[in-house]
Amino acid sequence: MSEAVSESAAPVESSHDVLFKPLGIDTWREHVVYLHRDCAVCHAEGFTAQTRVTVTIGTRSLVATLNLVGSALLSPLQVSLSTGACNILQAREGDIVRVSHGPTLDSLRGVRAKAYGHHLDRAQLCAIMHDVAAGRYADVHIAAFLTACVHGKMNLRETVDLTRAMVETGETLRWDRAIIADKHCVGGLPGNRTTPIVVAIAAASGLMIPKTSSRAITSPAGTADMMEVLTPVALSAGRVREVVAATGASLVWGGALSLSPADDVLIQVARALELDSDAQMVASILSKKIAAGATHVLIDVPVGPSAKIRQEADLNRLRKLMTHVAAACGIRVLVVRTDGTQPVGRGIGPALEARDVLEVLQCKPGAPQDLRARSVMLAGLLLEFCESCPEGAGPALAVRALDSGAAWRKFEAICEAQGGLRAPGEAVFRQDMTSPNDGIVTEIDCRLLARTARLAGAPERQVAGIDMNVRLGDAVRRGDTLYTLHAQASGELAYAAAYATSHPAIRIGEPR
Amino acid sequence: MSEAVSESAAPVESSHDVLFKPLGIDTWREHVVYLHRDCAVCHAEGFTAQTRVTVTIGTRSLVATLNLVGSALLSPLQVSLSTGACNILQAREGDIVRVSHGPTLDSLRGVRAKAYGHHLDRAQLCAIMHDVAAGRYADVHIAAFLTACVHGKMNLRETVDLTRAMVETGETLRWDRAIIADKHCVGGLPGNRTTPIVVAIAAASGLMIPKTSSRAITSPAGTADMMEVLTPVALSAGRVREVVAATGASLVWGGALSLSPADDVLIQVARALELDSDAQMVASILSKKIAAGATHVLIDVPVGPSAKIRQEADLNRLRKLMTHVAAACGIRVLVVRTDGTQPVGRGIGPALEARDVLEVLQCKPGAPQDLRARSVMLAGLLLEFCESCPEGAGPALAVRALDSGAAWRKFEAICEAQGGLRAPGEAVFRQDMTSPNDGIVTEIDCRLLARTARLAGAPERQVAGIDMNVRLGDAVRRGDTLYTLHAQASGELAYAAAYATSHPAIRIGEPR
Repeated sequence: MSEAVSESAAPVESSHDVLFKPLGIDTWREHVVYLHRDCAVCHAEGFTAQTRVTVTIGTRSLVATLNLVGSALLSPLQVSLSTGACNILQAREGDIVRVSHGPTLDSLRGVRAKAYGHHLDRAQLCAIMHDVAAGRYADVHIAAFLTACVHGKMNLRETVDLTRAMVETGETLRWDRAIIADKHCVGGLPGNRTTPIVVAIAAASGLMIPKTSSRAITSPAGTADMMEVLTPVALSAGRVREVVAATGASLVWGGALSLSPADDVLIQVARALELDSDAQMVASILSKKIAAGATHVLIDVPVGPSAKIRQEADLNRLRKLMTHVAAACGIRVLVVRTDGTQPVGRGIGPALEARDVLEVLQCKPGAPQDLRARSVMLAGLLLEFCESCPEGAGPALAVRALDSGAAWRKFEAICEAQGGLRAPGEAVFRQDMTSPNDGIVTEIDCRLLARTARLAGAPERQVAGIDMNVRLGDAVRRGDTLYTLHAQASGELAYAAAYATSHPAIRIGEPR
Repeated sequence: MSEAVSESAAPVESSHDVLFKPLGIDTWREHVVYLHRDCAVCHAEGFTAQTRVTVTIGTRSLVATLNLVGSALLSPLQVSLSTGACNILQAREGDIVRVSHGPTLDSLRGVRAKAYGHHLDRAQLCAIMHDVAAGRYADVHIAAFLTACVHGKMNLRETVDLTRAMVETGETLRWDRAIIADKHCVGGLPGNRTTPIVVAIAAASGLMIPKTSSRAITSPAGTADMMEVLTPVALSAGRVREVVAATGASLVWGGALSLSPADDVLIQVARALELDSDAQMVASILSKKIAAGATHVLIDVPVGPSAKIRQEADLNRLRKLMTHVAAACGIRVLVVRTDGTQPVGRGIGPALEARDVLEVLQCKPGAPQDLRARSVMLAGLLLEFCESCPEGAGPALAVRALDSGAAWRKFEAICEAQGGLRAPGEAVFRQDMTSPNDGIVTEIDCRLLARTARLAGAPERQVAGIDMNVRLGDAVRRGDTLYTLHAQASGELAYAAAYATSHPAIRIGEPR
């Protein structure tokens, strides 16, 4: 009735103070805040279990999901936080904590619009990436966004805008050379760990290649997971600059640098869903490369019936999208098709792949030749692409770097600069998986192998995974070992073995 | 190497026993299990925070998300559960609890296939609904499924199969009459609470109408939320049969009956995402009706610029889909278009809507006439559709039932049979939202009003919501009350008022 009422504008977020008490509950990256169900803030604000709230200590704040405690764990004047949230807020016992309503997520309108088949403009995508990077989205929101964007549902303009939005929500690295090389594999092929070898060859041949890698999304290992077996990879931007200044290269985890941080959040949920999409893949890869300061990026795309990219049509679509988005963002990409019909090297999983990489770099006689040949080919193409040598001269230059020991010395130097080179560990629990009959290896399902290696514990358990004993075309006898499962826990070994038995990844055909 | 190795098949799920200790943490419907990070099962099975695990006590089990405790809350030999999981497993202190690997969700392949644009067959949809109803999906999986199915991405055959799959994963009710009437509103129009009035009129006119309703998805109240203000709605199937035997009708919550239980899970995540889709809507509505034993269902579809259905084309698509799916499942539907340009009645929110319903049923002079007129129209059409009267005679029959007091007596009888009729409560905290200038009400945004009412606490707080003071075309003066916010907590009132101020739902145009 009176005007005065509507003019007394209420604050958007009112808040109440409670005191922090540690409970030591680890919820991984899902932040949880614990309040007693009788505390004043719950009643005043109408909070219930699972309400999304903003938690603030001093000048730091984050969005968390509320759990209510009905026991004496907490008094109505106390609050607790999951350990991840504790670390981010640097919470100490007795700290004053403010809990208020979570942000109104206006950007979710864009997610719904996308789900309903509409195209998003740059402002919508920026708003979504901003909220994602700030941790304001619950996992269900991220799952909806990812699902809405798969399978060509993003057009070219949207993919460019998404890429730029991802770059803009994070930090960027800049280098003082005209050509900064980079290399990436879209994945999908277990054991395809050419990146450390290509980086070592390229840097030994004079290129600047400050490589930042991701951890695995749906695979048993990412390059960062594998490199972490050998050397520290979670370096600050300042430390990466030192490493690159000293060696011309790095092999670090991008996630520690806050390059395209929204991507890191998206990737975790994509992993839970085992969901990949062209637009997401292109934006993820290119946003990391642009933020890392690359100018020339070689993209390795394995094509095969059970790889991530299965058909030539998919490759061509991806190449076109990747090339266009890169050009729109001012960088160059070279998309290289590689064979994706079977795993590369012998190991699948961080430590087993690290072993293969060391053998190739050290030119060991038993080193997996397929991994060596592929690395040489890619390094050669990268050297040509970056104008380090005339067209056609790349492979020979790469072989020289490898065989002379220059690439291995460069790799050692990079690892030393990052904090020291260490030897891969080995799994305690192993089980041979054998052939059920005589015959020829006619088909290897990379997806089933990857799934089996993940069930065995990879990539979280570095030593877990699969050690392959056969390749396509090999003749085997009944009882021969096809591959060996490696695990750090007996339960994981049993679980992976049971899955492998019920989902055979290797087909043994009639002997010729 | 030896055959013996691969023949010693490992069990799919190994397990370890720990003892239950209650901690009293409420996580709502997201089940959480707490283990000490040093407990044997974590090491043996390789569990980490957020691992999905199967928790078993005696013959009961469920799937939960693991949180790890690093403090003295639990010893390495103890386990705890969120309160919801405690209740389902009937856990008591000292119970032996087995924690093992969660199920391998093969049905997720179908979710991914759907996201990638493939059509799903009946077996895939059954497998997904089965896993959803059993609580095996994490919320991110459900979010991905819902997002993959929105906006016409499900074809007719899939929608029929989804509907049947949802019916088959739950209980069903059967009645001994040839015609069983039902009525449903697709929602989107705040305050449109005709169902209790239509049921009372229809039952008073001799129809059998055992109505089971849902709670709100994205709206400030569902019929079940509103009815719960007046009478118990969470009745067992046996109690519903008694109520229907006594009165020919019921007005209960379907969720307590395990009719189409997968739908109840989907609806909770859809609510968090504020995501609706044709196929999901049709499958949700029809699966509930089929499971409840209905043969003739009237579907009220409000059409308006800010209603759930905004255009005639959407209505026609929905009518076609609804009619086809119903026919394929052996029931009949009558889709009725109603005006969706503004809220119905005055109240928005459970208690305020209950007040309006009582006023109409009791033929109070001040009762909202739009709610009465709409209820009479729908009840008349339902009576004709169910062959209770000749075509064209329905509305007069409905008016007679209302004006004679027969409908009110029937409503009283239904509530008494369900456990007693009680009076709606009233909100302590209220705030008038006033007109910023003189003019005419030219537009009412139902979505913004619904959002405001939800921020005020509806439907969780029964008394929370909005009491409308104007309708389209009304002349107002600066400072006149447009509507009054009702809340149970001062924080919620302030939050809703702030949102309403920054997102005005009512447009005041130039006076004529």
